Amino acid sequence: MISAIALRARLSRGETTVEAAIRRSLDTIDERDRDIRAFVALDRDAARQRERARSGPLEGIAIGAKDIIDTADLPTEMGSPIYAGWRPKADAALVMLARKAGATILGKTATTAFAQGDPPATRNPHDHAHTPGGSSSGSAAAVAAGMVPLAFGTQTGGSVIRPASYCGVAAIKPSFRLLPTTGIKCYSISLDTAGLFAASVPDAAFALAALTGRDFSISSEMHRPRIGVTRQTFAGEVDPPCETVLARAIEALEQGGAKVLDLHDPPEFATAWRLHPIIGDGEALRSLSWEWETHRGLIPPKLTEALSVAEGIGPGEFDEARRAGKRARVAAHDFFKDVDAVITFSAPGPAPRGLQSTGDAKFNRLWTLLGVPCVNVPAGRDARALPVGVQVIAPFGRDDMALGVASRLETALQHVLA
Amino acid sequence: MISAIALRARLSRGETTVEAAIRRSLDTIDERDRDIRAFVALDRDAARQRERARSGPLEGIAIGAKDIIDTADLPTEMGSPIYAGWRPKADAALVMLARKAGATILGKTATTAFAQGDPPATRNPHDHAHTPGGSSSGSAAAVAAGMVPLAFGTQTGGSVIRPASYCGVAAIKPSFRLLPTTGIKCYSISLDTAGLFAASVPDAAFALAALTGRDFSISSEMHRPRIGVTRQTFAGEVDPPCETVLARAIEALEQGGAKVLDLHDPPEFATAWRLHPIIGDGEALRSLSWEWETHRGLIPPKLTEALSVAEGIGPGEFDEARRAGKRARVAAHDFFKDVDAVITFSAPGPAPRGLQSTGDAKFNRLWTLLGVPCVNVPAGRDARALPVGVQVIAPFGRDDMALGVASRLETALQHVLA
Repeated sequence: MISAIALRARLSRGETTVEAAIRRSLDTIDERDRDIRAFVALDRDAARQRERARSGPLEGIAIGAKDIIDTADLPTEMGSPIYAGWRPKADAALVMLARKAGATILGKTATTAFAQGDPPATRNPHDHAHTPGGSSSGSAAAVAAGMVPLAFGTQTGGSVIRPASYCGVAAIKPSFRLLPTTGIKCYSISLDTAGLFAASVPDAAFALAALTGRDFSISSEMHRPRIGVTRQTFAGEVDPPCETVLARAIEALEQGGAKVLDLHDPPEFATAWRLHPIIGDGEALRSLSWEWETHRGLIPPKLTEALSVAEGIGPGEFDEARRAGKRARVAAHDFFKDVDAVITFSAPGPAPRGLQSTGDAKFNRLWTLLGVPCVNVPAGRDARALPVGVQVIAPFGRDDMALGVASRLETALQHVLA
Repeated sequence: MISAIALRARLSRGETTVEAAIRRSLDTIDERDRDIRAFVALDRDAARQRERARSGPLEGIAIGAKDIIDTADLPTEMGSPIYAGWRPKADAALVMLARKAGATILGKTATTAFAQGDPPATRNPHDHAHTPGGSSSGSAAAVAAGMVPLAFGTQTGGSVIRPASYCGVAAIKPSFRLLPTTGIKCYSISLDTAGLFAASVPDAAFALAALTGRDFSISSEMHRPRIGVTRQTFAGEVDPPCETVLARAIEALEQGGAKVLDLHDPPEFATAWRLHPIIGDGEALRSLSWEWETHRGLIPPKLTEALSVAEGIGPGEFDEARRAGKRARVAAHDFFKDVDAVITFSAPGPAPRGLQSTGDAKFNRLWTLLGVPCVNVPAGRDARALPVGVQVIAPFGRDDMALGVASRLETALQHVLA
């Protein structure tokens, strides 16, 4: 994988050029993407890119943007034939943040149709017979395959953290709206959160700081952090490798000086977790109303099922789900009261075999509804060498803490694994 | 003005047809809009409209949609030459709600550039030398001039309630996100709220119910409502006609059996009111980033000033404004504790003379930040016969109460004025 921080250091030392860095990404894509199919559109005109590029902290950093994120100079097809060849008028706000920081939007990455469950053709770089996860399938795979150092995704349920876990890359789903969603085709306006994939947690922190102008520098001197553990029993079972990896993470954190304690999930969490789809699919029925009413024959099966079910959601049921979300956010204050961050599963298992499903968001969707920052830390492999991640979660607005604890965990795991 | 309820009744009784109703709107527009300039695009193909129209509660109702609301079959120009001739791919979710309810989107109405302060050419139907207000200038003017029974607008500060007050029409800015904003070019993603203009409060309630599938039927038997009054002293002074009209509203409500009491504004309100522009303009700098960075020469003066100031807003200042908004929402619970609804000024005066300014949102922006439903009730005229409104506000989610009290006030004022 390409570390954004290491690449920037090489650029600063004059060991490579912006042109060469972009060229290397294009070469890797040419070499690997015929099999992996992470990209659905590429901006090959490096000269024009160079001309437009600004100087900034992300100069020389090539980015893959999920294809529900508007780009004025590249098609934005939403993973759907309804939008074949569609060119938006303007760049999404997130794309503009990247351009203003000097980055190059190198291409658009494959997404499930309208960021729901119908998979694109993308394959897991670690085993092409397995899904990379979704809905941000191409973004996770592109970073994992070393094609680009950075990629953008969005998460309604688990569409950033889960594919990151399946593909063995670092990723952050930041606090709700830390990254702007204007110009992104949101499935659910009150859940969809833009996030990013990178080679390591410090790379993700570096990119998030460069995009937002905020300080996410990772402190090396965090003294004896208190880390809570939840197994989200309300969400059901996990595969054994996930338990193994979570236990290893706990051990690594404790060896590194952290105090680790089991947390009790408040009952409001289970209710909010159960009602999350009412909000998500209920809002999607409005967001995708034009597509659903005028091009129903082109809506794929999983999305058809979700929107059909959503047609039965009444205002009372929707309002109750929204209120349950609010009650869970209030309960989260107490949940996080005695800890700096929480660790849990990133996904119910390693990437499932086959490309028919992108997996299950059951260990992610509560946290998306809470709006709290979540980081995937690649934490090990299963018997078939497929990656398994651990999820680090901090209170709302404490993206610095989520990244700090995740970075500490990432380093500690390297010592344990070494 | 055209009452949507009365028109639907005539359609039901066979006294007119859908074609004739739409034709009448087009005739009125042809007659009056050369002077008023409410519409920037019209869908004159009534036959095609008829073919597409569904049966539903809004069949035969012609709607003007603010030109920041996406329409697939009409240009959407955002009040800016940057978007001249622009055709979005899809209809906005709000447009689809209207179509699904059987309504006809008859045209797009004039907006300030990107719904900020730079006025369009629209004139106040009550005196062409005066502004209709903004940013939903054309929508308020189109309903006031009897061109259409219903129009859509959006409000970041006071862009629905203020022009309604200036133009003497009923309007509701509902609870945040009661109407969907997907497919609307939002200035501020966490403030912008879609609303609607109609001939009377019951017409607005009827339309809101038809669009949302919720029950906003106005109860005739509300027993002795408790109505709070705030003069929003944190927001500064009003013109004398506004005090006169508010006093008349209080008198009318008391005569109608309401208990009216003065409320004390919590200090959190003044702080949130003061910091509202930090959120609005700070978010606009992201939402309009592509336009600002690539077409700066086409950004008009007031928007240029707002975005220039926003460039100086740091993350700490933005976060503090956001937190102040949250504290004000908590304080609002106590504020509304002992009352069913609150009345206050809709605007600081009647419509200002001249078309250089759309007026001041100072009596609206707190309530937009709180996300609570606000209704404008046309409540009188000043010495020059310009309309002056009164604003009725209810707690979040109690749009039924805001509409119920507003309707009661509207009726009571008719008795007082008669």
